[in-house]
Amino acid sequence: MQNIATQGIPQGSGRKAIVLLSGGLDSMVVAGLVREAGYRINALTIDYNQRHRREIEAALAIATHLKAERHVILPLDLRRFGGSALTADIEVPKEGVGDDIPVTYVPARNLLFLSLTLAWAEVVGATDIFIGVNALDYSGYPDCRPEFISAFADLANLATKAGAEGARFTIHAPLQFMGKADIARESHRLALDSAMSWSCYDPQPAGRPCGLCDSCRLRRAGFAAAGLTDGLDYAAG
Amino acid sequence: MQNIATQGIPQGSGRKAIVLLSGGLDSMVVAGLVREAGYRINALTIDYNQRHRREIEAALAIATHLKAERHVILPLDLRRFGGSALTADIEVPKEGVGDDIPVTYVPARNLLFLSLTLAWAEVVGATDIFIGVNALDYSGYPDCRPEFISAFADLANLATKAGAEGARFTIHAPLQFMGKADIARESHRLALDSAMSWSCYDPQPAGRPCGLCDSCRLRRAGFAAAGLTDGLDYAAG
Repeated sequence: MQNIATQGIPQGSGRKAIVLLSGGLDSMVVAGLVREAGYRINALTIDYNQRHRREIEAALAIATHLKAERHVILPLDLRRFGGSALTADIEVPKEGVGDDIPVTYVPARNLLFLSLTLAWAEVVGATDIFIGVNALDYSGYPDCRPEFISAFADLANLATKAGAEGARFTIHAPLQFMGKADIARESHRLALDSAMSWSCYDPQPAGRPCGLCDSCRLRRAGFAAAGLTDGLDYAAG
Repeated sequence: MQNIATQGIPQGSGRKAIVLLSGGLDSMVVAGLVREAGYRINALTIDYNQRHRREIEAALAIATHLKAERHVILPLDLRRFGGSALTADIEVPKEGVGDDIPVTYVPARNLLFLSLTLAWAEVVGATDIFIGVNALDYSGYPDCRPEFISAFADLANLATKAGAEGARFTIHAPLQFMGKADIARESHRLALDSAMSWSCYDPQPAGRPCGLCDSCRLRRAGFAAAGLTDGLDYAAG
């Protein structure tokens, strides 16, 4: 797997990094690692008119806390396409994580978001792109698999002027092979307040996470397994 | 090159096709070929806040003329990133087509646009995606090269739930190896009014194409070489 880095983060030494910052726990931890490694954070958040737009507020708080050099919140209304419980009137499943790819899958989302990070990276002259995908405690989304991330990294060099002229983009996915308990531990080690992030797909009244969607379940199980307290106030479960 | 089709178009037999419709001559001809082949046209136009937003009106006229089943005009404000003469305050070159990739290159544009077509294709259950790229009479953009289109096609199957479940997307680039004169001839053969399309990067007062940007030059040279009249009223040249 060329062009992708899944173990650790090299020293940034003041270089610019483009960080895909959804506002979830995973992207918060990635951004924390990027800051720790000494990069200048250029954070990109996509407002895709998602059901859980609450995560955008979280992204804003995280970018501010981590002193991002720049934070772009880019609107891309994926409700125009629909096709997901996060972008159409389809109920978010609450029964627990199953074996199939769930209806919360958003068609081609990570491809779209990585393509946007690449576009911005090329404009600002950065070649280090960070994304918080992981494929251990996850919902089975195809675009979280290492083979997808690796293929995207190869494509990045073909798709761009910078690549045609010899630049080599690296897609860093430092959480790729980490479980949620490890991610919770990293959050704690980096002294990141977990309540600053938002994972729930189905925000409840009074701004509380539902506690029962896949995303809540995976997150809660991670904190529990790590023996850590999650700062969020769940509505149920 | 698996998964890409650059020679002719198979019969659509009423299947849905996703057509990336910029409003330029090339995408108009592609849409005409798609209609001729008997597909149901689902046209996608990206309003990326481009300098030549006039092309969006052209896309609308073309989609209406070709009786597209659906036409989505999706806003994606690439001026938030900038970095191109089409999305920032950078002058459009008028000296003629050179050897280098020009400043009208928009970072990762075709990757972004193909990713959006893929997302929509997956939602509507289509696997045939059409794009009007060509790499003969063109400005040297890296994301018009067949190796990029081919790599994207491979990635499409990794990036999606449909692909993970066995669907195979095909990226049709029927103009890939055609020159502009051939494209002008196809436009004529399909009885498409060239004035319905818009290619100019730098629209002039009174809604006239400049006649001097790369896009105007390539188009005019194509019509001239084909011995055909272009219905547009150029401001100069």
